[in-house]
Amino acid sequence: MTDTAVATTSFVEKLEAARRASVTLATAKADLKNAALQAIAVAVVDNTARILEANELDLANGRDNGLSTGLQDRLTLTDARLVSLADAVNEIVALTDPVGQVVRGSTLPNGVGLTQVRVPFGVIGTIYEARPNVTIDIAALALKSGNAVVLRGGSAAQNTNRVLVDVIQDALASVGLPVEAVQTIDEFGRDGAKQLMQARGLVDVLIPRGSADLINTVVQESKVPVIETGAGVVHVYLDESADEAMAVEIVHNAKVQRPSVCNALETLLVNASSAPRLLPPVLARLRASGVTIHADERTAALFADTVAATEDDWSTEYMSLDLAVRVVDDLDAAMDHIRAYSTHHTESIITNDVANAERFLSEVDSAVVMVNASTRFTDGGEFGFGAEVGISTQKLHARGPMGLGELTSTKWVVRGSGQVRG
Amino acid sequence: MTDTAVATTSFVEKLEAARRASVTLATAKADLKNAALQAIAVAVVDNTARILEANELDLANGRDNGLSTGLQDRLTLTDARLVSLADAVNEIVALTDPVGQVVRGSTLPNGVGLTQVRVPFGVIGTIYEARPNVTIDIAALALKSGNAVVLRGGSAAQNTNRVLVDVIQDALASVGLPVEAVQTIDEFGRDGAKQLMQARGLVDVLIPRGSADLINTVVQESKVPVIETGAGVVHVYLDESADEAMAVEIVHNAKVQRPSVCNALETLLVNASSAPRLLPPVLARLRASGVTIHADERTAALFADTVAATEDDWSTEYMSLDLAVRVVDDLDAAMDHIRAYSTHHTESIITNDVANAERFLSEVDSAVVMVNASTRFTDGGEFGFGAEVGISTQKLHARGPMGLGELTSTKWVVRGSGQVRG
Repeated sequence: MTDTAVATTSFVEKLEAARRASVTLATAKADLKNAALQAIAVAVVDNTARILEANELDLANGRDNGLSTGLQDRLTLTDARLVSLADAVNEIVALTDPVGQVVRGSTLPNGVGLTQVRVPFGVIGTIYEARPNVTIDIAALALKSGNAVVLRGGSAAQNTNRVLVDVIQDALASVGLPVEAVQTIDEFGRDGAKQLMQARGLVDVLIPRGSADLINTVVQESKVPVIETGAGVVHVYLDESADEAMAVEIVHNAKVQRPSVCNALETLLVNASSAPRLLPPVLARLRASGVTIHADERTAALFADTVAATEDDWSTEYMSLDLAVRVVDDLDAAMDHIRAYSTHHTESIITNDVANAERFLSEVDSAVVMVNASTRFTDGGEFGFGAEVGISTQKLHARGPMGLGELTSTKWVVRGSGQVRG
Repeated sequence: MTDTAVATTSFVEKLEAARRASVTLATAKADLKNAALQAIAVAVVDNTARILEANELDLANGRDNGLSTGLQDRLTLTDARLVSLADAVNEIVALTDPVGQVVRGSTLPNGVGLTQVRVPFGVIGTIYEARPNVTIDIAALALKSGNAVVLRGGSAAQNTNRVLVDVIQDALASVGLPVEAVQTIDEFGRDGAKQLMQARGLVDVLIPRGSADLINTVVQESKVPVIETGAGVVHVYLDESADEAMAVEIVHNAKVQRPSVCNALETLLVNASSAPRLLPPVLARLRASGVTIHADERTAALFADTVAATEDDWSTEYMSLDLAVRVVDDLDAAMDHIRAYSTHHTESIITNDVANAERFLSEVDSAVVMVNASTRFTDGGEFGFGAEVGISTQKLHARGPMGLGELTSTKWVVRGSGQVRG
């Protein structure tokens, strides 16, 4: 099917079918949802040949259309990648079902019982790029949390996604769940994404996954409430009292261990009085791992062969072995810098001063604030949530690493025995 | 000042000042915020003459401009109303500060300590109608929860609001808090509301208060995340096994006790087999209190002198002594009706059947679901939250009655001793 094919089911019909499916899913027991997830994991591996054939078609189109090698790599599925996708689905089986969890409760003075419980959103929409792994990942997370999901993937992956959704729907049917619990709207092309963003009332929440541009477009245009996962211009501040060995290890880990992810360090701030002591060993260790240092003047005076930092460096999420480094006068100057340039993802202070640590934790307005720890810990898996839905940098609903619980809403259950209000 | 006056401070400058004030407020201790609230309560009463003079000017303009008597009533302040507004502010003093409350926490296997704590949003924007009580109310709630607030009230109340904000700002200054914690943008007229809805990044969350039209406009147009407080087309379903006395009392309380509020009953659904037993006493009691019955055919066959219900009645929030009544075949038909017409605010089942009660609580997708209780209990005060921020009918962030905690976000605080990720 191509963008110009005639859709046999209308867009609104698909969303209405998702709503009906969501009613069934909302009360489906964890056993049944887990059986569906296990069936999906098996089916993804069993259908390897069919999936890879569709993927090869997308890759061939991509090469013809000049898709960059980076994007081609993200689009590519292999036997091994499908096995690891299936493994990830099986890991979601092992997680606790968030639906029905009691958040809080009380008995009112008149005897009325009050319980706030987690319930699914209903229908989740998601808009993402040509990464077929997201198709499996988000479908599994939505299913486990009792939500129907409507998928709009990048058009460069549409053949792969169509087969993946077929495979998922067959698995759903095999356990008796409605196939409309997982649907693609790729056949509506770009217009589908636009319509999804307008579908207030039919879609409960929209989760964009991908580049900052994609997320920003959805945030700006959507009339459906959005859960935003944002970019990370992440800071570490080396305070005057920072331990040298700790500073070296944490900065190295935060920058080098996996530079392409959002919790990796992008800007290092160093207290002026400790810079002569700390910067040479910290930067030498980074350089040994191939990191390019974008240095302000005071840093360049303490460490040779750096690149001069420009104003742009302070707001750049490199996602590579590059690091911006700036010497600041004191803690206040460090927090001023963070306030001006941070994306409010994760910031860490390395210090042995209790008062400075507490000020930093209290005053820095980011999703995750740390003392004496690597910023790489900002991660759903590391936090013990099991699954990685994404890292929210917005303040509404979810902030920081999102687990399955963040894919739910709540409802209040009130149990009376005839009480009326006086 | 009128709509055409030249603004001395630009719109963006005001929002930036609010942001700076929010940084101070975010770490202000409860003692200081409470002192500010107490100063506001005193100042509102002390400045009665000045406030009523401005209010009389707005009322005179309203009469000249043909403002309806209902809107004039909502606009009117009196000595007594100011005292009760001051009392309400003092009640907020007594509430627990939500900022710093620990939501959850754990120690990771590597010894890293993890705590999720409540923090203010930062800057709250609010758009409301010509009800000056909202000015005091929302300013006090925002202050207690550590947020700066930017107010856009209805232009018909702009003289009153300007004086109220002056009074609040003087009270803030008297305890040493920044006056920009509470600002009005009324001087920018309608354009101010539009700009506020575009101010993503400067304003963290927007809370519209008022009519369904106002809320819908904000929800549709805002690029800033919105907390929506919605209309209540509230249902009670009388099941086959409903106790007659309980049905009579709960339906009467839900409809009659305060018909003008969102948790009041609007549509009564009755199981067909119990309708001959229940409808005559239930409707007789309502009629004795002056309720007009908008009846479907099956209801009209059981109770004389009703008005014929039209399709529109099923989705009308009367907010008056009117009630739509429909006989349905069974629980499934009742839930189908609710699914089709509810605004997902509050629905209650009256029953003595455990299985039906549990199905209703589980399957009805509303902010509050009840068994054997009056829908009038859906209220922040009744739920023990102390303050009434509003009742959210959306699923993101807050659902149901909102207390001070719902005016906060969270942040993760991570305390390590040099841990890096392996």
